[in-house]
Amino acid sequence: MSEIYRASTTAPVNIAVIKYWGKRDAKLNLPTNSSLSVTLSQNDLRTHTTASCSASYPAEDSLLLNGKPQDVSGARTQACFRELRALRKEVEAKDSNAPKLADLPLKIVSENNFPTAAGLASSAAGFAALVRAIANLYELPADPTELSRIARQGSGSACRSLFGGYVGWEQGSATDGSDSKAFEVAPASHWPNMRAVILVVSAAKKDVSSTSGMQTTVATSSLFASRASETVPRRMKEMQDAIKNKDFETFGKVTMMDSNSFHATCLDTYPPIFYLNDVSRAAIKMVEQINTAAGKIIAAYTFDAGPNAVIYYLEENEKQVAGVFKTLLADKDGWSGERGAAIEGNYEAAEKANTEAEVAVGLLKEGVSRVILTGVGEGPVRTEEALINEKGEPISVLY
Amino acid sequence: MSEIYRASTTAPVNIAVIKYWGKRDAKLNLPTNSSLSVTLSQNDLRTHTTASCSASYPAEDSLLLNGKPQDVSGARTQACFRELRALRKEVEAKDSNAPKLADLPLKIVSENNFPTAAGLASSAAGFAALVRAIANLYELPADPTELSRIARQGSGSACRSLFGGYVGWEQGSATDGSDSKAFEVAPASHWPNMRAVILVVSAAKKDVSSTSGMQTTVATSSLFASRASETVPRRMKEMQDAIKNKDFETFGKVTMMDSNSFHATCLDTYPPIFYLNDVSRAAIKMVEQINTAAGKIIAAYTFDAGPNAVIYYLEENEKQVAGVFKTLLADKDGWSGERGAAIEGNYEAAEKANTEAEVAVGLLKEGVSRVILTGVGEGPVRTEEALINEKGEPISVLY
Repeated sequence: MSEIYRASTTAPVNIAVIKYWGKRDAKLNLPTNSSLSVTLSQNDLRTHTTASCSASYPAEDSLLLNGKPQDVSGARTQACFRELRALRKEVEAKDSNAPKLADLPLKIVSENNFPTAAGLASSAAGFAALVRAIANLYELPADPTELSRIARQGSGSACRSLFGGYVGWEQGSATDGSDSKAFEVAPASHWPNMRAVILVVSAAKKDVSSTSGMQTTVATSSLFASRASETVPRRMKEMQDAIKNKDFETFGKVTMMDSNSFHATCLDTYPPIFYLNDVSRAAIKMVEQINTAAGKIIAAYTFDAGPNAVIYYLEENEKQVAGVFKTLLADKDGWSGERGAAIEGNYEAAEKANTEAEVAVGLLKEGVSRVILTGVGEGPVRTEEALINEKGEPISVLY
Repeated sequence: MSEIYRASTTAPVNIAVIKYWGKRDAKLNLPTNSSLSVTLSQNDLRTHTTASCSASYPAEDSLLLNGKPQDVSGARTQACFRELRALRKEVEAKDSNAPKLADLPLKIVSENNFPTAAGLASSAAGFAALVRAIANLYELPADPTELSRIARQGSGSACRSLFGGYVGWEQGSATDGSDSKAFEVAPASHWPNMRAVILVVSAAKKDVSSTSGMQTTVATSSLFASRASETVPRRMKEMQDAIKNKDFETFGKVTMMDSNSFHATCLDTYPPIFYLNDVSRAAIKMVEQINTAAGKIIAAYTFDAGPNAVIYYLEENEKQVAGVFKTLLADKDGWSGERGAAIEGNYEAAEKANTEAEVAVGLLKEGVSRVILTGVGEGPVRTEEALINEKGEPISVLY
C-alpha cells in the first residue's frame, strides 16, 4: 500500500468590525474596500481539518465536512488547490528528496465544533483551515500572509482567519490580487481581554447569498461608492489606532457605525437586502441601554449578513454586558460552559431593561435561540489529532 | 359685539416619492435636498380648518385640533402667524377700506378626518390648512407658491400640500429661504389614475421625532452627503420626467429606491434610527412578489418616518395590487367604503402569496391594523362649512 501523508490544523472564525462588502473582482475575490476583524477563540468556535494525500486514494480530490461529502469542483476550491500544489511543486523542484505530493489526490476531512446553520461565518474558518492544513501537508515555507492570499480566493473573509488577534485585510490594487492580503494589526496578547457574546437569532434561511448580494449592492446602491472610497478608509485608520491604544470607546463606536453603514448599503440595494430583523434591532436597543447606563461605550454590536448579534466588550465589564443577557436570557443554551459559569448575572440592569425596554426584551426572549460566549483568540494551530486515520479513512472526534 | 371674521379650507396629505430628510437651516426649515410628492385625495384624508379673528376674542391666539387646545407659542406656528399678518398689513396699507384684521387675535379650529396617531403626515395637512385658511381670512392675493414658503416654516413637507397632483419642493439656495418653495410638477388631472393603498402598521410610539432624527443623520451619517448632493438631484429629474411621461415603471422604481435610500441613511445615523420593522419588510416583500408576477413594476412602496407602507399603483392594476391585499387582509378596517367596495379580490394571487411568502403574509395579518384606500387628489379647497359658528364658538362636523 502506498504511503498516506497527513497533516491537521484548527482554524478560527473571525467577525469583522470593519465590514467586507463588495468585490472589484468576483473571480479573485478582490474587495472594493479593506476590512478588519477580531479572530475569535478556537476554544469556542473552530474548524478542525485534516489534509491528506496518497497514491492509493481515488483520483478525484475530495472533501468531507461534518460527515457530508462536499463539491470541490467549484472555481474557489479549485483555485486554492491549484495555488497550493504550485507551491508544493516549487518545494519538490528545489529538493529532489522531497516526496512528490503535488500530483497525488487530496482527501480532506473537516469538522466544525459549532452549528454550521447558525450563520457564523463558517466559510471563513473552513477555507482558512483547508489552506493551512494543505500547507502543513505540503510542508510549504509560506507564511500566513502568503497563505491568506490563497485562502482569500476560497472565501474573501477566510484570509483574515490565518491570523490570530486583530487582523486587517488590505484591499490592494494589483489586478492579479497579489497585494490583497491579510496582515496582523495586533496579536491577541496585545489586548487579550476582548470578549464577545453572540446572540444567535432563530431565522428563516438567508434569502440572498453574500456573493450575489454584494454584487447587487455594488451595481445598484447609490450610497455604496462613498462607503467604499471615503468611509471605510477613514475607519480603517481609526480602528487600527483604537486597537493599538486599546481604546474601547473608539473601537466600539466605529464597530457599531460600520455595521450600520454596511447594512445601510444593503438596504439601499435594489431590490433591498435585509439582514437585520426586529430581534436584531432589539439587541441594538439593549446595547444602547447598557452603554447609556454605563455613561460610556462598553459594549459594541456588529452584524454580518444575517440577524445574529455579535457584541464585543472587555472582560472587566462582563457583568455590565454579558451579565445582563445572562439574566434576561437565562433559559437559552450557551450559559452552561466554563465561560458562562464565570459570568455574574446582573439582576438590577435586567430589571431596568424589563421596565424601560419591555418590547426589546420580549423580542430577544422570543427570538434568540442560543448564546455563544467567546473572546479574542489565536490563529490556526497545528494539531496531531487527525480526522483521517493511518489507513486513510475519515474519522470523527466530535460525532 | 364686534364682528367675527371667518374663513375655512380643507387641505390634503401628501406622501413623498423623493424624500425630504435633513435641514440646512433648522429655524427656517430649509432642506438639504429637494423632494417630490403625490397629493392624496381629500375625500380620504384631509384636514379641515377654520380661521377666525375678532376684537371680541381673548387676546391670545388659539388653536383647537380635534377638540384639544394646542400650544401656538412655538416658533414654527408663530412664524406662520407673523408672515401672514405681515401680508395682511400690506393689504390694509394699500386699501384703507380693508378692515384691520392683522392685529386681531386669531382663533383657529381644525379637524382631521383620519386618526392623527396613525403617523400619516398629519402635520403637513395641518400647516397647509392653517396657512391657507388664514390667507383666505385675510383675503391675501398670495398664490400657492408664496403660501408654500410660509407653510414650510410650520412643517417642511406642509409646503407641498398647498398644491394638488404631483408636487416638487425646490430646496433653494438663499439663506433667507425665499427660494425654497413648492411647485406644481403636474396637476392631478394629468395622471389621474394614480392610486394608493396605505397599510397602517400598529406600532409602538415613534422613538425619535423627525426633526431631531434628521439633524442627527446630517451630523453623523457618512453616507448622507452623497444622497443629498448626488442621488436626490438625479432622481428629482428622473421623477419629473416619469410623471410627465406617465411612466409608472420609472416612477415606481425611483419611488422604491428613494424610500430605501432615505431609510438607509437613517440606519447609517449614530445611534441608528429604525422606522421600518418586520411588518414593513413583509409589505416590501409582497410588493416585490406582485411586481414579479406582473413581470414589470406595477406597485411601488414608500415609507415615511414610520412603519406604515404607502403603496402606489395605477387604477388599471387595482386587482393585481390592492386586490391581493383585500383578499389577504379582508378582516382589517378600511375595505368597507366606496373605494374598497370597488376593488375586486384577487384569490389566485393571495393563494400564491400564502404559499410562497407565508412568513410575510403572517406578519402582515398580525401587524397591519387597518388599510386606507386613496389616490392622487387636488390641493386645498375653500369651503363654507365652518368649524367656528357666528358667535365665535368652536363646533365640530365630525365628532
